Amino acid sequence: MKGAVIHGARDVRFEERDTPRIVQPTDAVIRTSATCICGSDLWSYRGINKITSPTPFGHEYCGVVEEVGGAVRRVKPGQFVIGSFFASDNTCPHCQAGYQTSCQHRELVGGAQAPLLRVPLADGTLVATPELPPAELIPSLLALSDVMGTGWFAADAAGVKPGKTALVVGDGAVGLLAVLSAKQMGAERIIAMSRHPSRQKLAREFGATDIVAERDEEGVARVKELTRGVGADSVLECVGTEASMKQAIAAARPGGHLGYVGVPHGVTLKGDELFYTHVRLHGGPAPVRRYLPELIELVWTRQIDPGKVFDLTLPLAEVADGYRAMDERRAIKTLLRP
Amino acid sequence: MKGAVIHGARDVRFEERDTPRIVQPTDAVIRTSATCICGSDLWSYRGINKITSPTPFGHEYCGVVEEVGGAVRRVKPGQFVIGSFFASDNTCPHCQAGYQTSCQHRELVGGAQAPLLRVPLADGTLVATPELPPAELIPSLLALSDVMGTGWFAADAAGVKPGKTALVVGDGAVGLLAVLSAKQMGAERIIAMSRHPSRQKLAREFGATDIVAERDEEGVARVKELTRGVGADSVLECVGTEASMKQAIAAARPGGHLGYVGVPHGVTLKGDELFYTHVRLHGGPAPVRRYLPELIELVWTRQIDPGKVFDLTLPLAEVADGYRAMDERRAIKTLLRP
Repeated sequence: MKGAVIHGARDVRFEERDTPRIVQPTDAVIRTSATCICGSDLWSYRGINKITSPTPFGHEYCGVVEEVGGAVRRVKPGQFVIGSFFASDNTCPHCQAGYQTSCQHRELVGGAQAPLLRVPLADGTLVATPELPPAELIPSLLALSDVMGTGWFAADAAGVKPGKTALVVGDGAVGLLAVLSAKQMGAERIIAMSRHPSRQKLAREFGATDIVAERDEEGVARVKELTRGVGADSVLECVGTEASMKQAIAAARPGGHLGYVGVPHGVTLKGDELFYTHVRLHGGPAPVRRYLPELIELVWTRQIDPGKVFDLTLPLAEVADGYRAMDERRAIKTLLRP
Repeated sequence: MKGAVIHGARDVRFEERDTPRIVQPTDAVIRTSATCICGSDLWSYRGINKITSPTPFGHEYCGVVEEVGGAVRRVKPGQFVIGSFFASDNTCPHCQAGYQTSCQHRELVGGAQAPLLRVPLADGTLVATPELPPAELIPSLLALSDVMGTGWFAADAAGVKPGKTALVVGDGAVGLLAVLSAKQMGAERIIAMSRHPSRQKLAREFGATDIVAERDEEGVARVKELTRGVGADSVLECVGTEASMKQAIAAARPGGHLGYVGVPHGVTLKGDELFYTHVRLHGGPAPVRRYLPELIELVWTRQIDPGKVFDLTLPLAEVADGYRAMDERRAIKTLLRP
């Protein structure tokens, strides 16, 4: 089997790999219908996260179950399933509390950019669609594997409520889907921070009512202006840099919520500064599994269309081109067809 | 008029000061019935917060209104009132959202360790008791001016709920009243971290079900042990050092709440570490004003007795001894009689 392997900075190859197989009795192997490239993997692609040995790449997936281990009860061969980047048993106290990405037995799912994928803890991790989906739904179902669930968690963690103001920091795929999530949760005003016309356009399609192109202090000042000096009720941070976190905190109202889902890189928060803002912080790796049943229902009934974030589709063999396009910001998100 | 003035590290004097008077038409002047010494002022007393010029000291007060400015409508001479360390208009959007300590027009109230005190924004800041209180209620009413409201905010910010586990980090007056608050809000299990027998005893009186004397990693391990490896649902951080914050974060369950009210000193949080804990953070200077009506009612009807934290009472003239006793941890909290 050939799949994507990262060898180092800007060095992603489509090459021969071991074919995934059942290792634990709780595993499943699925045949991927589609996979894609995540903005968070650009940290590795750009050499900021170091790659020490060739590593199968990709963690977003949906597809048809090929085979299950002897202890798998719920998931059956032939089902179309979606799972998260963290496998979880969905029964431990952390899972039961809705934090499956902190599962006491969690395992990272890796090497999803391939035709076949081993998923550990299959019963806890995978959620099946009501039946095999029509082809046109596959991009939106694939988006649920990470970006849509992550945008949704940003909105949930930021306590988005009907009639309130939500500010989205970051115009990558997660940021754009955070806009869609805020809209779905009833935010009256949704301010998207973006300076890219194509992303501004998609943000508006997803429900943004205002676009702020300014950044940092100017960006905060503009948000304050738009909120009569008060700040946003909910801020959805979808980048993960120190500048974006500072901007997010400064733009929230006292007592407002900050949901942060951009994997922090080099972010340091000073306790005393945070203290006097009165901002509520909640974030982390999105517990996508918690949201899968609800989000599958929303996609299945055509209420949301998160697949719109895929503006480039390539055969899996051209995965390296897909990374290049995202690195250079020519594409918002690349879908790969195995 | 003589009052307390801090001149530098460990140099508090009871000396002649200007008599407070109405400066703004929204001011009130009150005759203090009691005042006290706050743990947070020990940062200045110990020289960690620098004192650059002699400063009237103290910010906790209750007493009888002497005089009001021409624009004061709600507060009347002769009423017994309690206020917070931050004066607030109670009408701006931040006040309306319940964050009066972030009031757009907030002013610090200073120099409360004196027989007379000027309180700005009197209508927004002061809350009157139903009638003049009996002498035995005064310590508990005084506690509402800061420590009790601060402990209550810790519990509120930490989302304490009936049947859940609350962990209190810090056994100062605020920590002890955080125990009382958690009990009042229905926590089933309340773990207090303390290594001082007299404070452990009061923590138990206020509702602590378990005492953990270990600190740092050992303390966290003990809390995990007590919660079957899960961590606390709510952690109430009432110290403000980096060690106590780290301990508080590590002891919370994923998705658990950390309410932090200890004024942070030298606390730095790493974004990526916080991210993977899934802990919710909320804190800041307690919006005492929000809670005053409810807490006055609880004291007035003898449902809570926060005045128990005062284990030393001195005449105001002996204020310097009061600081010494708290600095040396001989007293939990010192009440001063003007």
